[in-house]
Amino acid sequence: MSGKLYVIGVGPGDPELLTLKATRILNKVACVCVPKGREEGMSLALSIVKKVINVDDKEIIESHFPMRKTRPQEHECELDARWQEIVENVMSRLNKGIDIAFITIGDPTIYSTFFYLYDKLLALNPELNIEIIPGVSSINTAAARAGLSLGLANEKIAILPATYTDDIKETLERFDTVVLMKVHKVFDKICDILNDMNLTDNAVYISRAGMDDEKIINNICKVKKKDLNYFSVVIIKK
Amino acid sequence: MSGKLYVIGVGPGDPELLTLKATRILNKVACVCVPKGREEGMSLALSIVKKVINVDDKEIIESHFPMRKTRPQEHECELDARWQEIVENVMSRLNKGIDIAFITIGDPTIYSTFFYLYDKLLALNPELNIEIIPGVSSINTAAARAGLSLGLANEKIAILPATYTDDIKETLERFDTVVLMKVHKVFDKICDILNDMNLTDNAVYISRAGMDDEKIINNICKVKKKDLNYFSVVIIKK
Repeated sequence: MSGKLYVIGVGPGDPELLTLKATRILNKVACVCVPKGREEGMSLALSIVKKVINVDDKEIIESHFPMRKTRPQEHECELDARWQEIVENVMSRLNKGIDIAFITIGDPTIYSTFFYLYDKLLALNPELNIEIIPGVSSINTAAARAGLSLGLANEKIAILPATYTDDIKETLERFDTVVLMKVHKVFDKICDILNDMNLTDNAVYISRAGMDDEKIINNICKVKKKDLNYFSVVIIKK
Repeated sequence: MSGKLYVIGVGPGDPELLTLKATRILNKVACVCVPKGREEGMSLALSIVKKVINVDDKEIIESHFPMRKTRPQEHECELDARWQEIVENVMSRLNKGIDIAFITIGDPTIYSTFFYLYDKLLALNPELNIEIIPGVSSINTAAARAGLSLGLANEKIAILPATYTDDIKETLERFDTVVLMKVHKVFDKICDILNDMNLTDNAVYISRAGMDDEKIINNICKVKKKDLNYFSVVIIKK
């Protein structure tokens, strides 16, 4: 019997935002797999889990996940050495019948690198037993902390990774709510656009939502360099 | 001392998708406020909570929430009788120092009617002690159940309430992932658009994600009238 791979969203940072299901599964699995990367987001997932679950008796696999700025092309079919190592780490446990929890910050379906691994695992064996457990997304948490609805009734919502997008202005024109992710590297550009469009009063900057050092800044012009970090979003409501 | 109003997302339907925080707060509050409406979504929130929390000793306020198809206009400042009743129900308990949990399906920031009440409560008293606790959204759950990433790397995500939107086609052209909510009343129209755009193979229909009677239909053309209901979304990934 093969083991089962659980992919678990552990929420945005507050350990109490783990779900009952995530907690139950994390308590029972023998092995926890956690991605490590250059971005600080990577090691946070394990620290969240450790505040709720005793992992002393579990095997922890920390794998370096190659970060990508764009989706790989279809023809790019060779796994690089790192990906190969992660796939082998996961497959060797599953083949021994060991259940694995792969943990990811927030919700797995929102910009989680897990899906690169998912495609590679399913390509190897489409019958693999994988269950994706949704979690509380950092986007919803940021909105909740700022007291903002992302959408009501007929309103339209857009989510853009600001660093890699050149149509922020057009999207702001067409949508009721725009959530900008990955804003820290292009913050000046975002401020310029919001200023030009007279939308600075409609924008809220939320950094590390739900964590101890959370920041919520209603006046986007008051955001300083030191306030900027990887876990920050800007929500604009018209 | 005034009571505190907790606004709690109870997740999409699976009671195990309640967070630890939601569970802790629901266990301690004396009063649970739950919206009731014509749409079936309204009474589900309480049934989810009852599977995890003993509410026998709690006061349950079930209020009819007037559903709106569009956001109220700024000049529409008169509360109708029903809203007035809900506001009074909440304020009278808070004024007696009673904590209230207002429960809502999924996540409060995603199309929850709570925000109409929120505006009215804050207009009465901007100092009210209100905490919004995010929950697992039905959108993320639908994607997880279908094994789909909503966004990766530089991908852009749009969320549209299909019933009230006339630019589905334009949005499909410009975004990598489009989530259509409230599809059941306009499903034929959606199928026509997807057919015209050659996107039927990219669309997944997910109904009642994470519930016992969940349906995931990969071929959108195979969705029958009987499969359609209020808790359904279509996710299109290009």
